[in-house]
Amino acid sequence: MKKIAIGIDIGGTNTKFGLIGEAGEIYAENSIPTQPEGKFEDFARILFFQIMKLRASLDFEYQLLGVGIGAPNANYFSGKIEYAPNLKWGQTVEIVKIIEEIFDLPAATTNDANASAIGEYHFGAAKGMKDFLIITLGTGVGSGIYVNGELVYGADGFAGEFGHLTAIPNGRICGCGKNGCIEAYCSAGGVVRTLKELLETQTETASSLRNENINNITTEDIYKAALLGDKLAMATFEISGKMLGEALANYVTLLRPEAIFMLGGLANARDIIFPTILEYMNINVLPLFRNKVKLLPSGLSKNFAALIGAAALIWDKNS
Amino acid sequence: MKKIAIGIDIGGTNTKFGLIGEAGEIYAENSIPTQPEGKFEDFARILFFQIMKLRASLDFEYQLLGVGIGAPNANYFSGKIEYAPNLKWGQTVEIVKIIEEIFDLPAATTNDANASAIGEYHFGAAKGMKDFLIITLGTGVGSGIYVNGELVYGADGFAGEFGHLTAIPNGRICGCGKNGCIEAYCSAGGVVRTLKELLETQTETASSLRNENINNITTEDIYKAALLGDKLAMATFEISGKMLGEALANYVTLLRPEAIFMLGGLANARDIIFPTILEYMNINVLPLFRNKVKLLPSGLSKNFAALIGAAALIWDKNS
Repeated sequence: MKKIAIGIDIGGTNTKFGLIGEAGEIYAENSIPTQPEGKFEDFARILFFQIMKLRASLDFEYQLLGVGIGAPNANYFSGKIEYAPNLKWGQTVEIVKIIEEIFDLPAATTNDANASAIGEYHFGAAKGMKDFLIITLGTGVGSGIYVNGELVYGADGFAGEFGHLTAIPNGRICGCGKNGCIEAYCSAGGVVRTLKELLETQTETASSLRNENINNITTEDIYKAALLGDKLAMATFEISGKMLGEALANYVTLLRPEAIFMLGGLANARDIIFPTILEYMNINVLPLFRNKVKLLPSGLSKNFAALIGAAALIWDKNS
Repeated sequence: MKKIAIGIDIGGTNTKFGLIGEAGEIYAENSIPTQPEGKFEDFARILFFQIMKLRASLDFEYQLLGVGIGAPNANYFSGKIEYAPNLKWGQTVEIVKIIEEIFDLPAATTNDANASAIGEYHFGAAKGMKDFLIITLGTGVGSGIYVNGELVYGADGFAGEFGHLTAIPNGRICGCGKNGCIEAYCSAGGVVRTLKELLETQTETASSLRNENINNITTEDIYKAALLGDKLAMATFEISGKMLGEALANYVTLLRPEAIFMLGGLANARDIIFPTILEYMNINVLPLFRNKVKLLPSGLSKNFAALIGAAALIWDKNS
């Protein structure tokens, strides 16, 4: 009989859920808007009935093992969401306890970037690797770290925050409250802000992006302009790539992974940005490690990496 | 019957060796000058007879389990010393194979900083901690990283080089061949060089150290001057402490250890330098982790940390 885990990927806007097989197969999936206010119990009940509907769509017998949940600021050790700025269910929410009660199944949780790392390890391009880093680029910059074949949670369950390394001391203020984080430069908003600064300071340089409303420009627009040779668009990727390369050099010097994976956002412009990242990574890394660490796109779809990774929390528990 | 492991700590100048018990007891120890030229086999035979003499001094029965060796650039995976700049036994030396043949016992090796970390974990102040960093300050700046209760070797056995993080892009050239490493500033020579630069640039500032021959000044002399309020000596520690604090902030943001240990060199001036390190670490770390990570002196003697840690390689193998 097939074994299935329920995966839930709670985002600030939408929540995805699916029935996932042992090899990462998505047997059924759907999504609904996240209801980030009121009580989490109420939202969990809505999820429960939505997932009942998904289950009804399966035409084979299966054994349901548990529920894995990826969510912002979710802590694997405590089973709680703790101080997530965009979710208003309370300062800390006991999501594992509540899901276990409503679903009557064992549950486990971690943050969305860690869930993507677990997905990459079990079902993606990191299969068989014991040491790697995955960076998820989007509204924020998340990351998951594997060392010796295990996800790194650190002493309190919150380790693995590559996006909050200080890239520029006293630099831009970040959402986390400190200055100069990678996330303040390499998230979707950070990249656009870099372009905006270039447009404002390099007034002599022609750019097709001057005709656009800056508030509507996306990383993808900048990518398309760079492909056509737009100098400020190219400079925007150069600045982001150099910063990621320098930070990755320090990561590699500490942890010497086999590979680094990138997913979403800037990684969609990898033909432009990966060479810059590699150049600065290899200049700044311990010479012993030069040209030894692969920089790769994720082997999973950005849409489903955290979903199937969340489900894999349950496979880890049952292995 | 007592169980004993032989520990060997090969340094550029001297080699220590000892008979170590399961709780880190040093039953007997001695040291001889390292003979870094000719064949390693010849030096290994000298060590063998020296250790025979130590064994003859024990007046109780024991079972000998193996030989653990800490050595510069030693690789746990390959059992070899690879490209150690100060040892002239050949580009790579199969030290585990040679020691196993001569001693007729199982052997294992790792670099000296990793050996200190293993010692700290088994017998020192890191007992019971799953996540910590140890930094060994001396002629170089070494480090050993524990994550999830295991030493981090990375994909090729050489991970854990905190001393070669880039602190100052395009900064001082380091012995490793790249620019701006922590080691180029915070090693014994690096600290003296910082003082020298301050003496040369801040000619208006009085300093008792102006009367000394700069080639004879040590970190300890600078410490003593700082305790007496010497401004340039204090500035030297401020510069080193800020640099270590900023780099540790990034370490903590990635790996969230329970504690950071420091051993030797600058750590001997901890009443002056630890507050500066903590100040800059807490400014630059992810706010979630502020004031949560302890900065501690090693629980082991600088002289014997690597020796008993090397022996503990054998306990790890037999556990």
